[in-house]
Amino acid sequence: MTSASICTIGDEILIGQVVDTNSSHISRALNSLGIKVTRMLSIGDDHDTIVKGLERELQTNDIVIVTGGLGPTKDDITKHALAELSGSRQYRTDERQLEIVHRILSSRGLDVLDINIAQASVPDTCEVIPNRLGTAPIMVFRFPTERFGHEATLYSLPGVPFEALGALNDISEDIRNHYPISDIYHKTVMTFGIAESALSKMLDEWEDALPSDMHLAYLPDALTGVRLRLSIYGGAKEEQEARIEAEMAGLKAILGDAIYSDQDDRLEKCIGRMLARNGKTVSAAESCTGGLISSLFTSVPGSSEYYLGSVTSYANSVKTGVLGVPAEIIEKYGAVSEECVREMAEGVRRITGSDFSVATSGIAGPGGGSDTKPVGLVCIGVSSQMGTETFRMVFKGDRKRNIDRFTANALNLLRKKIQNELNT
Amino acid sequence: MTSASICTIGDEILIGQVVDTNSSHISRALNSLGIKVTRMLSIGDDHDTIVKGLERELQTNDIVIVTGGLGPTKDDITKHALAELSGSRQYRTDERQLEIVHRILSSRGLDVLDINIAQASVPDTCEVIPNRLGTAPIMVFRFPTERFGHEATLYSLPGVPFEALGALNDISEDIRNHYPISDIYHKTVMTFGIAESALSKMLDEWEDALPSDMHLAYLPDALTGVRLRLSIYGGAKEEQEARIEAEMAGLKAILGDAIYSDQDDRLEKCIGRMLARNGKTVSAAESCTGGLISSLFTSVPGSSEYYLGSVTSYANSVKTGVLGVPAEIIEKYGAVSEECVREMAEGVRRITGSDFSVATSGIAGPGGGSDTKPVGLVCIGVSSQMGTETFRMVFKGDRKRNIDRFTANALNLLRKKIQNELNT
Repeated sequence: MTSASICTIGDEILIGQVVDTNSSHISRALNSLGIKVTRMLSIGDDHDTIVKGLERELQTNDIVIVTGGLGPTKDDITKHALAELSGSRQYRTDERQLEIVHRILSSRGLDVLDINIAQASVPDTCEVIPNRLGTAPIMVFRFPTERFGHEATLYSLPGVPFEALGALNDISEDIRNHYPISDIYHKTVMTFGIAESALSKMLDEWEDALPSDMHLAYLPDALTGVRLRLSIYGGAKEEQEARIEAEMAGLKAILGDAIYSDQDDRLEKCIGRMLARNGKTVSAAESCTGGLISSLFTSVPGSSEYYLGSVTSYANSVKTGVLGVPAEIIEKYGAVSEECVREMAEGVRRITGSDFSVATSGIAGPGGGSDTKPVGLVCIGVSSQMGTETFRMVFKGDRKRNIDRFTANALNLLRKKIQNELNT
Repeated sequence: MTSASICTIGDEILIGQVVDTNSSHISRALNSLGIKVTRMLSIGDDHDTIVKGLERELQTNDIVIVTGGLGPTKDDITKHALAELSGSRQYRTDERQLEIVHRILSSRGLDVLDINIAQASVPDTCEVIPNRLGTAPIMVFRFPTERFGHEATLYSLPGVPFEALGALNDISEDIRNHYPISDIYHKTVMTFGIAESALSKMLDEWEDALPSDMHLAYLPDALTGVRLRLSIYGGAKEEQEARIEAEMAGLKAILGDAIYSDQDDRLEKCIGRMLARNGKTVSAAESCTGGLISSLFTSVPGSSEYYLGSVTSYANSVKTGVLGVPAEIIEKYGAVSEECVREMAEGVRRITGSDFSVATSGIAGPGGGSDTKPVGLVCIGVSSQMGTETFRMVFKGDRKRNIDRFTANALNLLRKKIQNELNT
């Protein structure tokens, strides 16, 4: 099986100011080609570290994908390290990339500076795949067997996530043309509301009985619940997929309606699909979740088909003034109460005219909270013309984690209501 | 200088379904202790890979911090690998952690299962730091000089981000007690609106004249602009900080008002601070940004002091019905127009009673768009009783990148307006 290592270069990652999101995208692309990613590595903007670090990755992997360190600024030195690693004595200008540099800068109304032109210059030991989305080209270094004991290829991608992503198609094609591609087969189901350890206990016997070439991974995420992913490498597509399906049937029977989707999905996408299919609409009234529910809904392309909008009523005056929550309700029960979210949910449905709505009010912390209403408390309302239900839950976490949990649980309760009422 | 490597264990990262955010938090904590993080590594849930991978990191680093692979499910095998690596023959139960396991599960109303109890069991070669936030303990393995040619310590942290973060204080204290801590001095300024390459060009001479022990890093981020961070390792605190300040004065003179903060900041935090200091409030009317502006405002603890709320008016009916945008405006100019965002900004200020407001309407893509209104177009309005200004900008990116850019530019325009009008 072809193996790969993904290396990110940049002090900004090692000092913790930037989170590396490129590696995860690259990894998904490689996985879908059936390439096993054995390691991900981040190293700093230091010449020797880069040369030695990449050398070692090339010794143990067929493919090494490098991102970062190609910017025009002085702290970006990957290109020179790659020149040394590949034994290059000189640079050449790639005309296709130079043209792109000119086009991009002029479309932004910027002058083409010397440091921009230098971006199109590459070690003469590499092949270039032009990068249409940015100024730094994609470089491909092919090492003969003599060098590392096996044929090895190093792909150097720009570090800007948008450009790195854009390069993946070209890279994938090049890999297909140069490596025997074995396949990987996956099946993912999405669960919500059962903790990882409880899921594991429920699946204990089933997991023990799995064929030895199949592997179940638990992938928990605060915003989506626990993903369960059954996978197998190699073999004939149809046969292997049927084997996975068969095992998955057993898992589904055990977990029942804790499963909200039998594809790799997110709650907001799943909700959107149900609504679109039935020509229904939704809106949100958010307090403690502060716009995150709305932001998740609108992250889905085409969400304008079913998502009308939301009110983030952070101040009580907005709850009463915009959503029409009676001031007496807030006075009597407080803004964080099932009574208040009921009014919020019904209010936003009224002013937007949506079929469904979801509302949240809670205490994300770190401040606020009392004995009866602790930090981590959230009240959630879901509403439709069939009626409004409200819920009260308590979580323990920091502000961000609480907001994520509040949001995910609100989406899940909305998902259940839609599923029940639309019978979908 | 003490060096460290951060290793994340888990197939979920290598297959690209989860982004590693722990390493960045851990790295920041280590950096603030003056420890140089030389590498970050992610490896899979495979016994031999873990043992060999960690062995190698221990050979070249004083400290290795491991996260992940400690969950209760069958695919989490870090603990056994650590037992082998440290030559442990047996496990012992840590009573303090066992107590925490019982407390956590009973507070959640869950039964204590065997797999939960097993979480408190550790190789007899490690010291335990109890993890108050979760069931898996923090393990500390100390290796004598004979083993790797230098004293080495391995810290094993839980992979759940919330728990890993919670462990950092304890880990930091342990490191302080066992290693000579050299210092690192930083100074960060935040810029917005100038591309990295143009910044670099502007700073060219200044950067060349920097003392050789100082290093400037460019840290671009779609939501915050380009962070510029000047740093230096070691030396006497007061003297080094004065040296950094002196160099920074030169940088500030060059960049002028492209700098929006002279600390490590974010636009939403900077805006919040100005508003709170002046007793002013803000609201938002979002279309294409879909709630992200609101979500960023409310991510800041204490934002209820100045942030009143927002309307996400995704559907035109919400723009007219809730925000009071005249239907004729949308008919004549379209929802994505400077005329429309003017009405949105004024409308949300009217219904929430805020002093300032910001509004967005644009086309994030991938669908929609026309010759005159392409994908990537955004109209932004900022409003106060002093008046309303509107802007039109075009960006090139995928949906997420466009939404991020729209949001950041809206926040930056709002920041400028507040700065001007409050003279702050």
